[in-house]
Amino acid sequence: MPALKQQRKSDVLVELAKRRGIFWPSYEIYGGVRGLLTLGNIGFEIKRRLENLWIKYFVYSRNFQIIESPVIGPRPVYVASGHETQFTDKALRCEKCGAVFRADHLLSDAGITIPEGASLQQIDEVVSTKGVKCPNCKGDFSKAFQWLLMFKTEIGVGSGETGYLRPETAQGIFTEFKRLYVHGRSSLPMGVAQVGRVFRNEVSPRQGPIRLREFTIMEVEFFFDPDSNPGPSEKKYLEHEIPVLTAEDQEKGFSGFRKIRVGDAVETGLFSSNWLPFFLVLTKRFLEALKIPEEAFRFREKLPSERAHYAKQLFDCEVLLESWGWTEVAGFAYRTDYDLSGHMRVSGEDMNVFISSTGRRMVPHVVEPSFGAERLLYALLEYSLRVEEDGRICLSTPPYLSPYDVSVFPLLSKPDLVNKAMDVARMLGDLKVNFDDSGSIGRRYARSDEIGIPFAVTIDHQTLSDGSVTIRFRDTREQRRIGIEGLQAELSKLLSPPKPGV
Amino acid sequence: MPALKQQRKSDVLVELAKRRGIFWPSYEIYGGVRGLLTLGNIGFEIKRRLENLWIKYFVYSRNFQIIESPVIGPRPVYVASGHETQFTDKALRCEKCGAVFRADHLLSDAGITIPEGASLQQIDEVVSTKGVKCPNCKGDFSKAFQWLLMFKTEIGVGSGETGYLRPETAQGIFTEFKRLYVHGRSSLPMGVAQVGRVFRNEVSPRQGPIRLREFTIMEVEFFFDPDSNPGPSEKKYLEHEIPVLTAEDQEKGFSGFRKIRVGDAVETGLFSSNWLPFFLVLTKRFLEALKIPEEAFRFREKLPSERAHYAKQLFDCEVLLESWGWTEVAGFAYRTDYDLSGHMRVSGEDMNVFISSTGRRMVPHVVEPSFGAERLLYALLEYSLRVEEDGRICLSTPPYLSPYDVSVFPLLSKPDLVNKAMDVARMLGDLKVNFDDSGSIGRRYARSDEIGIPFAVTIDHQTLSDGSVTIRFRDTREQRRIGIEGLQAELSKLLSPPKPGV
Repeated sequence: MPALKQQRKSDVLVELAKRRGIFWPSYEIYGGVRGLLTLGNIGFEIKRRLENLWIKYFVYSRNFQIIESPVIGPRPVYVASGHETQFTDKALRCEKCGAVFRADHLLSDAGITIPEGASLQQIDEVVSTKGVKCPNCKGDFSKAFQWLLMFKTEIGVGSGETGYLRPETAQGIFTEFKRLYVHGRSSLPMGVAQVGRVFRNEVSPRQGPIRLREFTIMEVEFFFDPDSNPGPSEKKYLEHEIPVLTAEDQEKGFSGFRKIRVGDAVETGLFSSNWLPFFLVLTKRFLEALKIPEEAFRFREKLPSERAHYAKQLFDCEVLLESWGWTEVAGFAYRTDYDLSGHMRVSGEDMNVFISSTGRRMVPHVVEPSFGAERLLYALLEYSLRVEEDGRICLSTPPYLSPYDVSVFPLLSKPDLVNKAMDVARMLGDLKVNFDDSGSIGRRYARSDEIGIPFAVTIDHQTLSDGSVTIRFRDTREQRRIGIEGLQAELSKLLSPPKPGV
Repeated sequence: MPALKQQRKSDVLVELAKRRGIFWPSYEIYGGVRGLLTLGNIGFEIKRRLENLWIKYFVYSRNFQIIESPVIGPRPVYVASGHETQFTDKALRCEKCGAVFRADHLLSDAGITIPEGASLQQIDEVVSTKGVKCPNCKGDFSKAFQWLLMFKTEIGVGSGETGYLRPETAQGIFTEFKRLYVHGRSSLPMGVAQVGRVFRNEVSPRQGPIRLREFTIMEVEFFFDPDSNPGPSEKKYLEHEIPVLTAEDQEKGFSGFRKIRVGDAVETGLFSSNWLPFFLVLTKRFLEALKIPEEAFRFREKLPSERAHYAKQLFDCEVLLESWGWTEVAGFAYRTDYDLSGHMRVSGEDMNVFISSTGRRMVPHVVEPSFGAERLLYALLEYSLRVEEDGRICLSTPPYLSPYDVSVFPLLSKPDLVNKAMDVARMLGDLKVNFDDSGSIGRRYARSDEIGIPFAVTIDHQTLSDGSVTIRFRDTREQRRIGIEGLQAELSKLLSPPKPGV
């Protein structure tokens, strides 16, 4: 099938994903709901390992807390956070057919560019002067309006309380700050992480698995005092090089990125807090562990008009994807004391802490690294996918990010080989084993390769006589004989992820 | 503090949980929202390990699939599943003050017992004949009404589509059955699991951490053909004894439980499918791994009037809790082909599969074991909590269900001991280490004990001279010297969970 080589990688991936249980659009039997995705067995396992690796890098390696707060929040939480008024898209409704569009998408589809921060009036003016009509029915548009991106619900019965589904896990940390601070032994800096589902009621999401109405976020709220603790005491991060596209460069029309030494960038005053580049470096290490190629990711400083309402400075980590170009997979916001102060104002609870080294009380500042798990998963898959010369698909995920640790195959489906293979599978104890004894060995290798299982152990007649097995390596198809007694240790070594080392 | 010994265990637990970051009511700064709980660092980690253990027992040990589907489902899904009309509580609203009550709770608080399946009319009659008034304001009640237990939201903009937050993860599996069947190589039986958040808009939840509006469910939808595959081919499960309270016994007024041999119960026809007792036995093994005492759990067959709308037969697994008596922590339903047939009817998609051994097409039947993670966590904590003679609290969770694997302490905070202790912590590699060098060693042991860390390794002067450390055992306070080189292996052995072996 040499034709496959002409196919777009993303088409191959989407076909593979449906066929083997990685991901697909949910509720297809009911016509589907845009922006909702189901992860199958293979996708779920890879994502779970990706989350576990993130927790190793961003929680355990820093001794941060990690918690779990509810999805539903009562309205005052999102009044205080500013989301109820600020977390919106500008939208246009067709007065004839009722279809609703995100204004920037509609206009850009019509070949009209508007600045990111354009006001409702500006949009109305453009629509009127350019004579923009509904692409479905040629109808006229109503005045532009703010569309709230949070899902709304009612808590309790009848005239119940309004609740929102969280658009980020952060507020479930900020509202609990006073308790969390005690659990962290009442000292700063303090990191509190959360991995959980978040919800964004996008107007009309396109971009398949990329723009989701429900996804898993992995984030850290890092609390610190900018006076007594302006940055990491350990200085190793300053020596790293990271790929950056600054706001200044963008304003000059530059759209690539430059590798800069963090220490140099700090000296030029690029960062509003030194905790930002610290997390950028940790992220670089994390993306390296995901084997995202060096030239395929960058940290883009967002323009003032693009920033979230709570952010003094904001960097996106973008990965270059075949179908969607540079795509945000993580954001790094300096949220200052915006959120804690907001909750203090609305709830009346004092969020100040006492800093003994300065003798002052202050509301902690926050730097927040925030990752989208499904987008990282997609990027990981796209960069792992290879279509071989012979047309076979190989998913070369890093071994520690594979859906199974190892395949175990009896060479033939004879009882003595099958039983021995089952013994070997049992012996591998805590590893996750894909046992398969149906079909030719070549077909089993192929099935195992395309879902990314890094190693295959085959039990043959020689195993019965001398206790050796072959390990086959997915990426090279190389095979090596090894004694059963050394198998577990060898595999464990091959499966261990790199350390963050920042 | 000998007074502590007089305290109720649940009060000690709730105080500990708030103080050390296990769990507490969410959004306290806004007055709280009933039925919402936040898990702190310690609670989250224990729950995460509990979920991982469940996955080992109920997914990996059976080679089931495990997937992740969205929280939000479009309305037709819950029309087809019957939830929109059936997943309700009967409620009463005070016509004077507007307060709403769950009818059965209100009446039982008033000393009136009504049968579980009582109709709206029956409730109205009781309210009127007994003259039941609003406990808040003595007002009269409106007619009883059905209160939908699903949270409702709107997907998309304006005149958008109605969506529900899932009350179970099951429908996210049933709607995807056709794809999942292919991923499972088109053969039965097939198990598909999911661990995820579910939502139930309880009228007015009481019982603190037990009756939640949001919680994590862990469930398996096990698909099979009752003709060609009526039960497990491996017969070991028949030899197990399980504690059962049958519907028949309850109708005779018996309220304890009897230990029965599964094989005997199968012969008397207690189970409508033999897959039910198979999962009950696996659950018994799981609760044993949680160290829930043998006399503290039972499987109660639900009375016909208590059954969920989709269940032909239903068992609850109940654990005896200090404050709430026998409390459901899991349910086992024989759902027959109810759900797949419902989706077939509403969506028009054919859910039949071809069974080659019978030559017939059929809609697969389903047995579903379904666990509430937070309730299991609570039961685990209550049975782990011990208040010692000296008033100290010890959380004796099984080692593999602890928030950290091991504490590492330098005996004194001298640089050479601290550095050596850090080396030891690093050497322990993949274990989760609680490193603590502040305060007296006794205080550090106490802090470590009360959050359930099973082992503490102490580095002292002898360590520097002969490379040995002490391991202290949380539950016995016993200490043993061991060479550093054997430490990792020894700890790994102590930390490994029992196998299901069913």
